Amino acid sequence: MQDKKFLKYKIVAFGGGTGLSNLLRGLKNYNFDITAVVTVSDDGGSSGKLRKELGVLPPGDIRNCLVALSEEENLITKLFQYRFPKKKGGLSNHSFGNLFLTALTSVSGGFDKAISNAADVLAIKGKVFPVSLDNVKLKAMLKNGKKVTGESKISKSKSAIDMVEIEPKSAKVSKSVLYSISQADCIIFGPGSLYTSVIVNLLFNGVLSALKKSKALKIYVSNIMTQVGETSNFTLSDHINAIIKHSYPEILDAVIVNNGKIPDFVKERYARQNSVPVKIDKIKYENIKVIKKDLVSKNQYAHHNFMKLSKAIFNFLRSKTK
Amino acid sequence: MQDKKFLKYKIVAFGGGTGLSNLLRGLKNYNFDITAVVTVSDDGGSSGKLRKELGVLPPGDIRNCLVALSEEENLITKLFQYRFPKKKGGLSNHSFGNLFLTALTSVSGGFDKAISNAADVLAIKGKVFPVSLDNVKLKAMLKNGKKVTGESKISKSKSAIDMVEIEPKSAKVSKSVLYSISQADCIIFGPGSLYTSVIVNLLFNGVLSALKKSKALKIYVSNIMTQVGETSNFTLSDHINAIIKHSYPEILDAVIVNNGKIPDFVKERYARQNSVPVKIDKIKYENIKVIKKDLVSKNQYAHHNFMKLSKAIFNFLRSKTK
Repeated sequence: MQDKKFLKYKIVAFGGGTGLSNLLRGLKNYNFDITAVVTVSDDGGSSGKLRKELGVLPPGDIRNCLVALSEEENLITKLFQYRFPKKKGGLSNHSFGNLFLTALTSVSGGFDKAISNAADVLAIKGKVFPVSLDNVKLKAMLKNGKKVTGESKISKSKSAIDMVEIEPKSAKVSKSVLYSISQADCIIFGPGSLYTSVIVNLLFNGVLSALKKSKALKIYVSNIMTQVGETSNFTLSDHINAIIKHSYPEILDAVIVNNGKIPDFVKERYARQNSVPVKIDKIKYENIKVIKKDLVSKNQYAHHNFMKLSKAIFNFLRSKTK
Repeated sequence: MQDKKFLKYKIVAFGGGTGLSNLLRGLKNYNFDITAVVTVSDDGGSSGKLRKELGVLPPGDIRNCLVALSEEENLITKLFQYRFPKKKGGLSNHSFGNLFLTALTSVSGGFDKAISNAADVLAIKGKVFPVSLDNVKLKAMLKNGKKVTGESKISKSKSAIDMVEIEPKSAKVSKSVLYSISQADCIIFGPGSLYTSVIVNLLFNGVLSALKKSKALKIYVSNIMTQVGETSNFTLSDHINAIIKHSYPEILDAVIVNNGKIPDFVKERYARQNSVPVKIDKIKYENIKVIKKDLVSKNQYAHHNFMKLSKAIFNFLRSKTK
């Protein structure tokens, strides 16, 4: 699974949520130099509550990416979930993972430094950056003309999404991310919620111009299933069109999509939630290579198998790298 | 400072206290495979108190070795010393380092596993093992015929020490340490308190027979100054004789000793505490090579400069390894 020519091959993966950590979990088995860029528009209630209580706390997505990139994932997962017994004091309300990042933020002098220090302190094969240090909200213009604000509301919207934007519009991509893009050999978008985990990253000031300048191979990993609210009934080309509508036609060199069979009992369960396999239709952009592979995990979920996905990426990169 | 032929060269360093962590701090700059073996007979009061309060807690010496071997020593030092603000609950009484190791002991299912897991979880260049998992006390027979029990009392004894022993005498060296000895290319004893940090490690059942079987180069690093209580007025050969009295004549292949000048104002301050530079006299064992180097740090203490010490060790090993 190792290849000397990839020894310092730099991959930057954009995303958020479980899709990104799943991708990282696979990629870390190769000798790539990995940087994960994580969305920060998460407005979930528990993060806010914890932040208030302890002063500083990172979104769960960043913590999950750190853990996924760790060489000791099982152990760090258990350690981060550990809670001190109740009688030992007030901190027993918090997972050790939160205490760890809170202490590290305090000695590092800032949340962004703590995140990069966490990767140095823990045995982690890569870097994790929030896409921006600015505090933003995500807004969606729906096809029915209405507007919705907030990531959690957008994910649940019943009408199709036309465009998304961030507020304030002036929010900037972080410098570390800009630098990572400029150094990247390959940039991966997704898998993950199309608008709230993938496209949102393209909206920060500076991202698109950095991507245009970059000579990295740019790959979109399509979701296996449609997602009610964000991508109801979306085909593969609908996903691509939405990304291009928020960026520019040449943004992608390739798309990796599942053509493996999803067991009927799994498909039926998803169908009851109005979620169906993403149909592979013709893409109108000829510059985008479509890579079809069996990527599906062999369990009750129609998720990406992280080893299959990372192998598909590895093989594509090897075919492109002389 | 790197040398390919040392890429998997295994060094096992026995000791305790600041001497061992100082040695490790230097050795980690080379590409050795390092294992630190730490004394566990420390009977200091604060460890015991913390152990009682949180159920499980490691001696400070082990924690200091982990930190010294870390690639991010400054950051981990700050993180481990961090305390949560008082209002956040009872755990604010403990340093984050203790909370970290307590949580890790809990999820690892034991103190010994926690120590080896700590090295995997943190970015640490090596392993740290307690010499034994048994609970022991150190006893000393003094030259005036009296007996003293407990590491802290022995260190302060006014009469010279004749022999030390552990109680119970049946206490065993840990299996991980036995395995490390069997794999070692080089074994280093000291620097550190002669009886309570160096010789004590030789007293556990199984250590001496493993050392006899081992083909590793065995080096003793002599202290720069005599230590009141343990080694008042000891010359270099007195140190060697004491080690051999508790082991066997062939235990050492070499001794590394400081011949660098200690500034007069430093010497005078130590002299007021009855501590003098260890005199380099003739050793009666011809199998022991005496390596004299300027090893002294250029500050107000007559301590080893860790870079000078590790360089002296590296150069000696290179001269011995074809």
